[in-house]
Amino acid sequence: MHFISIMFQGDKNNGFDVLYHNMKYGLVASKELSEFFREKSNIEETNSKLMIKLANKANSGCVHGTFAPIWVVLKSSAEKLSSLHLQMVQKISELVKDVSKYADELHKKHKSVKEEEAGTLEAVQAMQASTVAVQKAKDLFSNKMQEFEKLRKDNSSTKDIEKAETKLKKQQDDYKQLLDKHNPVKAEFERRMTITCKVWPNNSSAHRKFLFLNAFLCVYVPLQRFQDLEENHLKQMKEFLSTYIELLQNNHDMVGKVHSEFKRQFMEMTVDKLLEQFVLSKYTGLEKPGEWK
Amino acid sequence: MHFISIMFQGDKNNGFDVLYHNMKYGLVASKELSEFFREKSNIEETNSKLMIKLANKANSGCVHGTFAPIWVVLKSSAEKLSSLHLQMVQKISELVKDVSKYADELHKKHKSVKEEEAGTLEAVQAMQASTVAVQKAKDLFSNKMQEFEKLRKDNSSTKDIEKAETKLKKQQDDYKQLLDKHNPVKAEFERRMTITCKVWPNNSSAHRKFLFLNAFLCVYVPLQRFQDLEENHLKQMKEFLSTYIELLQNNHDMVGKVHSEFKRQFMEMTVDKLLEQFVLSKYTGLEKPGEWK
Repeated sequence: MHFISIMFQGDKNNGFDVLYHNMKYGLVASKELSEFFREKSNIEETNSKLMIKLANKANSGCVHGTFAPIWVVLKSSAEKLSSLHLQMVQKISELVKDVSKYADELHKKHKSVKEEEAGTLEAVQAMQASTVAVQKAKDLFSNKMQEFEKLRKDNSSTKDIEKAETKLKKQQDDYKQLLDKHNPVKAEFERRMTITCKVWPNNSSAHRKFLFLNAFLCVYVPLQRFQDLEENHLKQMKEFLSTYIELLQNNHDMVGKVHSEFKRQFMEMTVDKLLEQFVLSKYTGLEKPGEWK
Repeated sequence: MHFISIMFQGDKNNGFDVLYHNMKYGLVASKELSEFFREKSNIEETNSKLMIKLANKANSGCVHGTFAPIWVVLKSSAEKLSSLHLQMVQKISELVKDVSKYADELHKKHKSVKEEEAGTLEAVQAMQASTVAVQKAKDLFSNKMQEFEKLRKDNSSTKDIEKAETKLKKQQDDYKQLLDKHNPVKAEFERRMTITCKVWPNNSSAHRKFLFLNAFLCVYVPLQRFQDLEENHLKQMKEFLSTYIELLQNNHDMVGKVHSEFKRQFMEMTVDKLLEQFVLSKYTGLEKPGEWK
C-alpha cells in the first residue's frame, strides 16, 4: 500500500499536507508509547512492593503449630514473584529508555525533513489558497452568466441586460486574472511535488505517462520520502512492541514456574509430614524421668 | 506419625500441655490464612484498577496517524487483564469468607474440647507442680545425706554429726510427705490421660502391655483426640490452599491467553496493513478537480 493513494484527494490538494502533518503523529505515538511502557513499569514496581508485603505477612505467620512450614513456602513464593516483578521493572525501564531515545532521534529527523520540505509546504499552501480563490471566482462567474441568460430569456429591459452583461464581463475578467495567477502557482506546486518524490521506482517515463493518464488529478506524487519515513517508523515501533510482548511472555512463563514450584512443594507437605515435622520440633528427647523412693 | 511421640518427653510431663495449647495455633493459622488471602485479594483489586488506568492511557493514545490501530489492541488487552484481576478479587473474597467461617467453627470446637479437657489440664498442671516439688525435696535430701556422711568420714564431733542427722531425718520426712501427696496426683493424672485417649487402636490389652514396657515413662497416652482434631484441621487448611493454587493457576492461564491473543492481533498488524488502514482513513474519494477555462 502506497501513500500515493492519499494524493487522490480531489481538488483540495491536501495530500502533501496530510503526509507532512502525519509525521508529527509518529512522534506523538513514540512519546505516548514510552509513557505507556513507563506506566506498565510503575505497575510492576507497585506489584513488587505489594508482593514483598504479602511475603512479610506470610513471614509473620505463627511459627508454632503444624501449619508453620506452609507459611515458609507461601513466603518464599511471594518473594520470588516480587523479584520477578522487579525484573520486569528493570527490563521495561530499559525499553522506555530506548523508546525515548528513538523519539528524540525521530524529532531531529522530522526537523530536517521539515526544513527541506518547507518550500514544498509553501507551494502546497499557495496552491490550496489559489485553488479556492479560482473556484470561488468560477462559481461567481457562472452565477452572473445564469442571471444574464435569465434576463435575456425573460425579455427584460435592454438596460437591465446591459447592466448584467457588464457585471458578467467584470467577473470574467476577475476569473481570468486569478487563472493567470494560478498557473505559475500550479507549476511551482507540481515542480515541488516532483522534487518531494525522491524515489520513483525504475522508470520515470512511466511515471510521467502515469501523470498524463491521471491528468484529471491536480496532484500525483507518491511522496516516497514520507512513505519511507513512515515505514521505518512503524517497523521501529513494532520492534519495541515485539520486545514488550516478549518481556510479558517470558515473565508470564517464570510466574507460571513459581506457581508450579509452589504447588509441588505444597503437595509434598502431606498432612502426615506436617504432623511429623511438628512432633519432631516438640520432641525433646528420651529422658528417663526416674522413680522416687 | 502420631502425636504419641510428643508424650515421650521425660520428666516434664508436658506432652498434654503441648497438644492442648497447639489447638490455639490451629485457630491462629486459620485466621492468618484468611488475612493472607484478603491481602492477596487487595493486590488483585489494586491491579484491576491499575490496568484500567493503563487501558485509559492506551485509549488516550493519538487517534491520528498510522499507529492508532495498535492503541486499540493495547487498550483491549489491558481491559481484559483488568477484568481477570477483578475476577480474582471475587473468587479470593469467596475463599476468605470460607476460611473465616471455618475459623469461627474451629473456635467453637476448641471451646468445647477445652471444657471437656479442663479436668485433665488441671491434673496435668498438678502433676507438673508436684513433680517439681518432689524432685526438689529429693535433691535437698541427697545434699543432707552427703553432708552427714562427710561429717562421719571426717570424724567430726558427735554433736555436729547428731545435728546433721536431725537435719537429714527432717528432710527425709519432708520428702516422704511430698511423695505421699504425689501418689494420688499421679494416679489422677494417669487416669485422666487414659480418658483423654478416646480411641486406642483395636487391642487395649496390647496398649496396657505397651504401657508396662514403657514403664520408665511417666506418661504414655496417644491423645488420639488431639491427633484427630489436628489432622482434620490440616486437611481443611490444605483444601483452602489447594483452592487458592487452582485459582492462581486458572487465572495465570487466562492471562496467558490474553497475552497470546494480543500477540496474534499485533502480528496481524503488519506495517503494510497499518499503512493501508491509514491511507483508507485519509482517502476521501476520487473527485475530479476539474479544469478552469
